[in-house]
Amino acid sequence: MSGPAVPKAVVLLSGGMDSSTTAAIAGRQGFEVHALSFRYGQRHAVELEAARRVAAALGVAQHVVLDIDLRAFGGSALTGDLVVPKDTPVERIGAEIPVTYVPARNTIFLSFALAWAEVLGARDIFIGANALDYSGYPDCRPEFIAAFERMANLGTRAGVEGAGVRVHTPLIALSKREIVLKGTELGVDFALTSTCYDPAPDGAACGRCEACSLRLRGFREAGVEDPANYRTR
Amino acid sequence: MSGPAVPKAVVLLSGGMDSSTTAAIAGRQGFEVHALSFRYGQRHAVELEAARRVAAALGVAQHVVLDIDLRAFGGSALTGDLVVPKDTPVERIGAEIPVTYVPARNTIFLSFALAWAEVLGARDIFIGANALDYSGYPDCRPEFIAAFERMANLGTRAGVEGAGVRVHTPLIALSKREIVLKGTELGVDFALTSTCYDPAPDGAACGRCEACSLRLRGFREAGVEDPANYRTR
Repeated sequence: MSGPAVPKAVVLLSGGMDSSTTAAIAGRQGFEVHALSFRYGQRHAVELEAARRVAAALGVAQHVVLDIDLRAFGGSALTGDLVVPKDTPVERIGAEIPVTYVPARNTIFLSFALAWAEVLGARDIFIGANALDYSGYPDCRPEFIAAFERMANLGTRAGVEGAGVRVHTPLIALSKREIVLKGTELGVDFALTSTCYDPAPDGAACGRCEACSLRLRGFREAGVEDPANYRTR
Repeated sequence: MSGPAVPKAVVLLSGGMDSSTTAAIAGRQGFEVHALSFRYGQRHAVELEAARRVAAALGVAQHVVLDIDLRAFGGSALTGDLVVPKDTPVERIGAEIPVTYVPARNTIFLSFALAWAEVLGARDIFIGANALDYSGYPDCRPEFIAAFERMANLGTRAGVEGAGVRVHTPLIALSKREIVLKGTELGVDFALTSTCYDPAPDGAACGRCEACSLRLRGFREAGVEDPANYRTR
């Protein structure tokens, strides 16, 4: 005798604090989590190790790492030869689209999540996009996510014949402080996560790039100690 | 002395008759064509050879073939182990979404085109989607293309800071007959193109799958002889 089927969800998991908290939220909401990560030529490939550790710690049903070749296009500090900016005053982060912007990255990631969801028979996709402390990326804004969902429902079998696709962004309106508190409440082990845009080969965070700056401020404001390994403190 | 810059366009080029005609249209409209193809685990990888031949014959500025791993998800006759349907009566093609549907394929392809366009500084993307003789794929419909364009303009630097992104679908309302006539008028060498879902290793078309059936009817109705190599006629 089998009980009611557990609904499946595809969760984009980079291995950072946001996506790890998002995966924990999806699990807490009762979804069977299918985690999806990408090897896309990022400088910070140690984040994939973090994604593996987080997926294992959360006990996800499946974790797939897809190879995609964004380097063929160039165009960002995260995949090309540009220098990752350091020591940007935290209040200035997000004032403009930064050089670390990867063209259409979330569009590409969500498109693959959509394909996998359709194959799995899942209608739920989770992404840890965050529009408050969001570093200025246009593809983290709620209006972008809503437009993606609408497009997805017009372009897939699930949207046309089925119940439709939902893109969940449980962190979209949270501050980094609130994300730290939410993750802590759900038992996310932030020591496993990797946020830095320019980590050392052993994974130690720089503590000075925009991602580190926002993370550190979030932990500080939450009154929680960041368990990540920083090399410059 | 240099003249005015020629605008660049990214053109999705599968090597079939539709995308080849679309690339010719983009060139005729004055765009510098940057052609994009994908090796995505398709059974009919000979179409990539066709794409190379067509790109060379059209004299495109650049042709990139990206590797993406749609096989990791399974789910379609074009990438998995399902049998390609043969001898479907041509008037029944498109009545429902066929097994040859690849989940979210055009969404993924357009997302990569969007990323490349952004890096190139191009605002124009061409796709040979066709809603008339369209085989029932939801991601070939004009409402899907419009929703993608809207999403693209919310999620990219070009949309937020620049003049915006346009997705051109010059074939969207044409019959296969009209595509044959348009391509012939533009000098497309249809002998170079590959349409079949189940070609022989030497590239010879089966003549019986849905793609072949629609193509053959288009040539017949146009009164033009199809120069493709068929193995079963």
